[in-house]
Amino acid sequence: MEKNIPDMNKMTVEEFAGILASSEPIPGGGGVSALVAALGAALGSMVCSLTTGKKKYEKTQPELDLIIPRLEEYRIKLLDGMKADAEVFLPLAEAYSLPKDTEEEGRHRDEVLEKLLLEAAKTPLILMDDIIMVMDLLEKLSHIGSRLAVSDVGVGISLCKAAVDSAALNVYINTKMMKDRKKAAQLNMEADELKEESSAICRWVMSEVISAVRY
Amino acid sequence: MEKNIPDMNKMTVEEFAGILASSEPIPGGGGVSALVAALGAALGSMVCSLTTGKKKYEKTQPELDLIIPRLEEYRIKLLDGMKADAEVFLPLAEAYSLPKDTEEEGRHRDEVLEKLLLEAAKTPLILMDDIIMVMDLLEKLSHIGSRLAVSDVGVGISLCKAAVDSAALNVYINTKMMKDRKKAAQLNMEADELKEESSAICRWVMSEVISAVRY
Repeated sequence: MEKNIPDMNKMTVEEFAGILASSEPIPGGGGVSALVAALGAALGSMVCSLTTGKKKYEKTQPELDLIIPRLEEYRIKLLDGMKADAEVFLPLAEAYSLPKDTEEEGRHRDEVLEKLLLEAAKTPLILMDDIIMVMDLLEKLSHIGSRLAVSDVGVGISLCKAAVDSAALNVYINTKMMKDRKKAAQLNMEADELKEESSAICRWVMSEVISAVRY
Repeated sequence: MEKNIPDMNKMTVEEFAGILASSEPIPGGGGVSALVAALGAALGSMVCSLTTGKKKYEKTQPELDLIIPRLEEYRIKLLDGMKADAEVFLPLAEAYSLPKDTEEEGRHRDEVLEKLLLEAAKTPLILMDDIIMVMDLLEKLSHIGSRLAVSDVGVGISLCKAAVDSAALNVYINTKMMKDRKKAAQLNMEADELKEESSAICRWVMSEVISAVRY
């Protein structure tokens, strides 16, 4: 399958948006969630770049030094998440076209679909976990980052929260079709919990940011 | 100023995220808000692409035919919004370095800043207006778009809402520094109202989408 996945990171921004707008299966909602979270991580790195080495913030430099490489790592990992999404989505989209004329074919199709649906539900859950790690780092930056860039922490948090909510939809849409309802319910619950966690971080950080930037 | 603005639409996705992460002034939180909203519009177009011409949806084809060119137009307009943000942000960032040693210089600097702050507060308000237009179109698609792509409507709405919240931060951060407090309060109120409107659309559409995709 992999040879069919275009390298979305090498597309221009305009091309990416144009192909997203088309009926091409890739990129779709899943890939965009990963991209938007990567942009949230990048905004965190920008805040670090505007804070690091500044006399005014030297007391928190050691903490910043721990955050910098992690945000860098997550940005790259989340950008790669577009490919991870494609790798589970494309085989699933293809599997729906498997024949189901005979009982044997139907059983085979069901088995293949069940396996791919499970993968397609787990992938956005892993993404959600990673995004929440980024949100935790942004939350730290809302305290120790340059005051001149605190609004960018807020933008980053908003984007990450939207990415988590979007990824949750990709969990639900896949668990919905699963035959193993117990497993499906468990995955949905994990998605719900991660959504709740990200909403809480977002509410907290946004209220901090708004009280800092608004007068 | 304009010659200093890089064409962000022609950067690769990876480059864009990398420059965003750096201390380069452009792109920043404002430009990213516009981009993320453009991705929301693109997702709407994708849903249209997956719906248009389908027998199952022929009854709503006339309505879809009205939505398709509008989402296309907004995607392009919002992508251009990255440049619009840079055009108000860069002169403002420069103006802070104007001399203020004499009373005359201080007065000139204050006047220049006040004018640029007003522009920098109005630009994200225009962006918010445009994004809410996109959200209205996405809301329509949540009813008439292909059921197979309804989760993508939800992703689009989440991204647009995050973009509106992000743009509001860019209103606040600029009005905060304005000397004309009456004007500042009026602009903040406009931002608050647009935020409230977008939150309401997002809540409504997301609950529709979740009840459609989750089981």
